[in-house]
Amino acid sequence: MNTRSDVTGTNQLDLAVIGCGNMGSAIARVALEKQYSVAVWNRSPERAVRLVDAGATVLTEVSQAFQNADLTIVCVSTTDDVRALLAQIDPTRVAGAILNLTSGLPDEANELAAWAAEHGVPYLDGAILCFPEQIGSAEARILVAGPEQLWTAHSDIVRALAGGAFHVGTVHGAANVMDAGLVGAFYMSSMVAFIEATRYMGNAGVSTDALRSLLPHTLDQFSEEIHDILNRVDTGTFATERATLTVYQEAGQTFLDTMAPHGPATMIRATTGVFDRAVAAGLANEDLAAIVKLSAE
Amino acid sequence: MNTRSDVTGTNQLDLAVIGCGNMGSAIARVALEKQYSVAVWNRSPERAVRLVDAGATVLTEVSQAFQNADLTIVCVSTTDDVRALLAQIDPTRVAGAILNLTSGLPDEANELAAWAAEHGVPYLDGAILCFPEQIGSAEARILVAGPEQLWTAHSDIVRALAGGAFHVGTVHGAANVMDAGLVGAFYMSSMVAFIEATRYMGNAGVSTDALRSLLPHTLDQFSEEIHDILNRVDTGTFATERATLTVYQEAGQTFLDTMAPHGPATMIRATTGVFDRAVAAGLANEDLAAIVKLSAE
Repeated sequence: MNTRSDVTGTNQLDLAVIGCGNMGSAIARVALEKQYSVAVWNRSPERAVRLVDAGATVLTEVSQAFQNADLTIVCVSTTDDVRALLAQIDPTRVAGAILNLTSGLPDEANELAAWAAEHGVPYLDGAILCFPEQIGSAEARILVAGPEQLWTAHSDIVRALAGGAFHVGTVHGAANVMDAGLVGAFYMSSMVAFIEATRYMGNAGVSTDALRSLLPHTLDQFSEEIHDILNRVDTGTFATERATLTVYQEAGQTFLDTMAPHGPATMIRATTGVFDRAVAAGLANEDLAAIVKLSAE
Repeated sequence: MNTRSDVTGTNQLDLAVIGCGNMGSAIARVALEKQYSVAVWNRSPERAVRLVDAGATVLTEVSQAFQNADLTIVCVSTTDDVRALLAQIDPTRVAGAILNLTSGLPDEANELAAWAAEHGVPYLDGAILCFPEQIGSAEARILVAGPEQLWTAHSDIVRALAGGAFHVGTVHGAANVMDAGLVGAFYMSSMVAFIEATRYMGNAGVSTDALRSLLPHTLDQFSEEIHDILNRVDTGTFATERATLTVYQEAGQTFLDTMAPHGPATMIRATTGVFDRAVAAGLANEDLAAIVKLSAE
């Protein structure tokens, strides 16, 4: 076990982890369990020192991480913290690559990538889509964005940390984009739509058991339809032999009229607004997926 | 094969099907294939006559259906058509039960149920959630609402028509409620949220392949979360050790700010509106599911 309190030289370490909160600590522990050599740094050293027993090298200067690790994972609270860290280091002495897993926005990831490009630092940006206790499992998801070859060079260790890790695109903001778009906007909105629908159904005499019975069927259809939408977007095919947007517009209005007198119907109201705009934009006879063509309100 | 062109007496038939459009015809054909005795009636007789080869009895008067079948399935275009049919019959001579599968609203189902109750006619109302070509398969879904014992008495034949048929509640409107709430409001809104998110992600450099890779994970989480929501609604438990509505409010606003400059963000905008109202209503520290407590806007 390596318990040195500092290191010198270059690339002596497989991994450095900057930030030893719950997530950073989980990453360091799993990497150590999987026999990688790992150094850790935390702003307040106490949290880093707790990892010594697991085999981590504790660094006293953050610059040592960047100068000695093949991959330095940054996992701190905010992008402001990342900026502050990078301001303290000499970019010409960065030995390996940086993978920033700090929660942030796509524009922030792209801004950090621009800094890295300017200084010739190999840089990847990512988003963590799992809990610390899932790190190391097959289910754990880490999305990584940035140059393909850089991903290839470091994919083994990232996959050791998260079985479900994958490369989402070459634009550095892409991981945060997926976090905002799929996990955020899609997931949250669907959940709220589900809760509003559940409230309406419950008040109208439908039991939650009846809902549970129909759910697998509904979610299966959902998954099929989503794949159809992605295929249509890929091929630009919006002609349909199924329901046209006019049919959706009419059905949506009926559902809204049915639900609205009985409580919140925010989501189906927003949905009918989208259908109205789509029809007004000339998409009346096209498939539901054609609403990808709408411009901002 | 029974090809009589009319019938007399009572309950000589297992099933009568009123309305021989694509759906009614599929129902009649499948019932005949499964060895039930079936009579059919259609406003224009040509469509009914096509079913003679399959073994159907064609009725010349719609009242014969109600007077001779153990179960009469009504599958016409609109509730107005159903009202017109019922106005032509003598309710005291209805021999079996009626199952109305015509598309309609919950209030319309309840109104027809009130008519049936007034005349002592055993009445079920339902909603068909599949295509005509699926009728007879295990996947076919027909939701049925009305008195439990009436469902039990006729569930065999309905399940023969649709493997996934089930009883959703005793309130007659309940099947249409589920159609509007789960299939309509929830499903449509989620789909629109997905398309808006897909557009945003595509423009920001995320490939549809990356989306496909993450989708199974997202939909699994979705399914888990939905069951958690139903359990919370059942038990009235809205305390949480996960994200509170304040956390959702902040995250939703960040996702909206991230997406909105790049195109339509209608659904996440509506979602943040719900979070804002929930927090204003005093639900800040409760679980996402607590938005079931919100009253109408």
